[in-house]
Amino acid sequence: MKTLTKKSVSRRNFLTGTATIAGLAAASSALPISVANANHTETTDKLPDFIKWKKRSALIVHSSKTMETHRTEIGSSLITPIRHIYVRNNLPSLTDEQIGNRKDWKVSVAGVKNPKTFTLAELQTLGQTTIATVLQCSGNGRGWFPHKPSGSQWQTGAAACVLWTGVPVETVIKACGGLAKGAKYMTCTGGDAPKNLDPKKATMERSIPLKAHKDAILAWEMNGVDIPNAHGGPVRSVTPGYFGVNNVKHLIKLDFTAKESSVRYMKSSYRISPLGKKGSQYPSCWEMPVKSWVTSPSQDGKVKSGKVVISGVAFGGTKKLSNVKVSLDFGKTWKTAKLVGPDLGKYAWRQFVYETTLKPGFYNVATKASAGGKSQPELRMDNRRGYAHNGWKDHSISLDVV
Amino acid sequence: MKTLTKKSVSRRNFLTGTATIAGLAAASSALPISVANANHTETTDKLPDFIKWKKRSALIVHSSKTMETHRTEIGSSLITPIRHIYVRNNLPSLTDEQIGNRKDWKVSVAGVKNPKTFTLAELQTLGQTTIATVLQCSGNGRGWFPHKPSGSQWQTGAAACVLWTGVPVETVIKACGGLAKGAKYMTCTGGDAPKNLDPKKATMERSIPLKAHKDAILAWEMNGVDIPNAHGGPVRSVTPGYFGVNNVKHLIKLDFTAKESSVRYMKSSYRISPLGKKGSQYPSCWEMPVKSWVTSPSQDGKVKSGKVVISGVAFGGTKKLSNVKVSLDFGKTWKTAKLVGPDLGKYAWRQFVYETTLKPGFYNVATKASAGGKSQPELRMDNRRGYAHNGWKDHSISLDVV
Repeated sequence: MKTLTKKSVSRRNFLTGTATIAGLAAASSALPISVANANHTETTDKLPDFIKWKKRSALIVHSSKTMETHRTEIGSSLITPIRHIYVRNNLPSLTDEQIGNRKDWKVSVAGVKNPKTFTLAELQTLGQTTIATVLQCSGNGRGWFPHKPSGSQWQTGAAACVLWTGVPVETVIKACGGLAKGAKYMTCTGGDAPKNLDPKKATMERSIPLKAHKDAILAWEMNGVDIPNAHGGPVRSVTPGYFGVNNVKHLIKLDFTAKESSVRYMKSSYRISPLGKKGSQYPSCWEMPVKSWVTSPSQDGKVKSGKVVISGVAFGGTKKLSNVKVSLDFGKTWKTAKLVGPDLGKYAWRQFVYETTLKPGFYNVATKASAGGKSQPELRMDNRRGYAHNGWKDHSISLDVV
Repeated sequence: MKTLTKKSVSRRNFLTGTATIAGLAAASSALPISVANANHTETTDKLPDFIKWKKRSALIVHSSKTMETHRTEIGSSLITPIRHIYVRNNLPSLTDEQIGNRKDWKVSVAGVKNPKTFTLAELQTLGQTTIATVLQCSGNGRGWFPHKPSGSQWQTGAAACVLWTGVPVETVIKACGGLAKGAKYMTCTGGDAPKNLDPKKATMERSIPLKAHKDAILAWEMNGVDIPNAHGGPVRSVTPGYFGVNNVKHLIKLDFTAKESSVRYMKSSYRISPLGKKGSQYPSCWEMPVKSWVTSPSQDGKVKSGKVVISGVAFGGTKKLSNVKVSLDFGKTWKTAKLVGPDLGKYAWRQFVYETTLKPGFYNVATKASAGGKSQPELRMDNRRGYAHNGWKDHSISLDVV
């Protein structure tokens, strides 16, 4: 089993360009550091304080701030249990002390006719709805890129299906007299930038195309509880169908801007660029592509021959899921799986089930989802940082039927 | 604050006819005992071992085996967090030791052409689906009956909206060659009867009309995790639209019978009889009637004048919810609330939101849901044991707008 030392973790963080911030977090507490090996086991037996309420056995620890959910620990009940949800924070999560009274947390709104600042208590008087979305890290699946991009080597577990409650962004805009002229982007700013660092480098600020605000909300609750600090409470922007990073944690500003933000996290990070290239001319990690994977059975275990139920999750990003197909022969032939359980809307994932009868032997189980006229490709689209992997081949599992 | 002593709790249990079993549970561990007062505060600061993983502050402790969810702790995200879900067990929950390897847990199936016994592992090869249901104790709302029926004095919190994953009962029947002739009831038996007690008195066995099996499942997962022992794992029958007691915990037998079970929990308990009367000629606690209540704001707190968002939950039992109306003047006038969030199907509850502007003063906030052509009545239907309360008046809240 390969175990990273603190030194090698710093080296990794250095490679991702977050050395200063990571160093700051590491200095603030003695965190256990370890890493997953290819078989998803790890040596750390404790979680850091800021997520000590999580279920340790459900998580693969990649570093002191990044933990993914074991493939079989998503649950089969549609909504990912909060104690199992992955953790991925570019910046140290704010503490209770830094947040203070949650109801007094302030969010300023700009790029509207009447700019205003609302406390959380005030936002809660404007309106309330609930949406279900897939929350997924841009780098989910990075672990399968052959060029070994820097960053956490996620496989499937930097993703969850979450229920969020908050106020629709449309309602907030209305309470501010409507959009100002010239708005082309919805730009959200997080309040977690360490004060002693250059704001251009340390501020989490993300712009997404204006149209995406239509279904977005400013959320204060996830899966029935106040959004925990580790997941960006008291207020987080939830931008359905867009990669996790666009769902800005510890939200302090909602702006409607003519241009994309110029901070590092928008301009240079999270760009899908060819191998060896980088720059803001490449597409940002915005809309998630269609994707699916098997969650049960586990590829580590053996399965009894006879009747076998194969199940998993599938979603269409910003498009409604059309279908999921399953192949047991390396993609030569495909059969349609059943979609089961409640349909929580196009931004949630759906559960699929494929019931079959299998003789003893080794099988490859691949799944291919379609949405909006597009299907998952066979292979990943190679890119420098290993973003947006939705190739069905790497996501397939081996099944040992005995 | 009124605090029950162990003696008075025993007296209460004696009144409910469960003295022997309660005594057995009390003898097995030193459990903290306390009770809620009218303002929902209590003195016990620890939960008993079998539910020590629950969130203490979300619960009102009525006795060592009965805890309800605070009215404001249901969450606004549709699915009740598992750590907040109420606890109500007629019998002590089975322990891990008693259960053994969960995959080996056995459920026998009778009243079918080819009776069989399945392990949980085998049930999981038959099929898989997910449903959302309201799980509600028959006595939810008992605390408002003026004749003070014996039993836990629940207000709104013996209810939750839960996601269950398991195999459809229809699929199990099919795997057994279909129903045998003469089946009129689906009868489920729990494996939690203490061995030294008379099975007729201590066995949790419930019969429901055969038609109810169509949407029922044998579940092994709730809200994304294995069903905890306290909630009836490894396998529980889930009978959507029917009161909680019909969702039999620790399921060991699924039978299709010509007659209702003759055990005490079917024959004499859970009968909706007039005051002062009892007997099996009265209706059993089966289908839940339409119901709704406000969950936010809290009636204990003060609300600022101006814009106010009133929200809550509503469900139609076995019927699809039609609408929810809100009255701020003791039921003189009613306005329709918005139904928000995903629709998880007719057996789940829906969230409603009513946005209004309020001047300072005291208000009564009542809600009235309709489903299948029926609306909640103004008053409870008085009955000996205080079951099935869905009157809107008692469920209304007082709001102090300042």
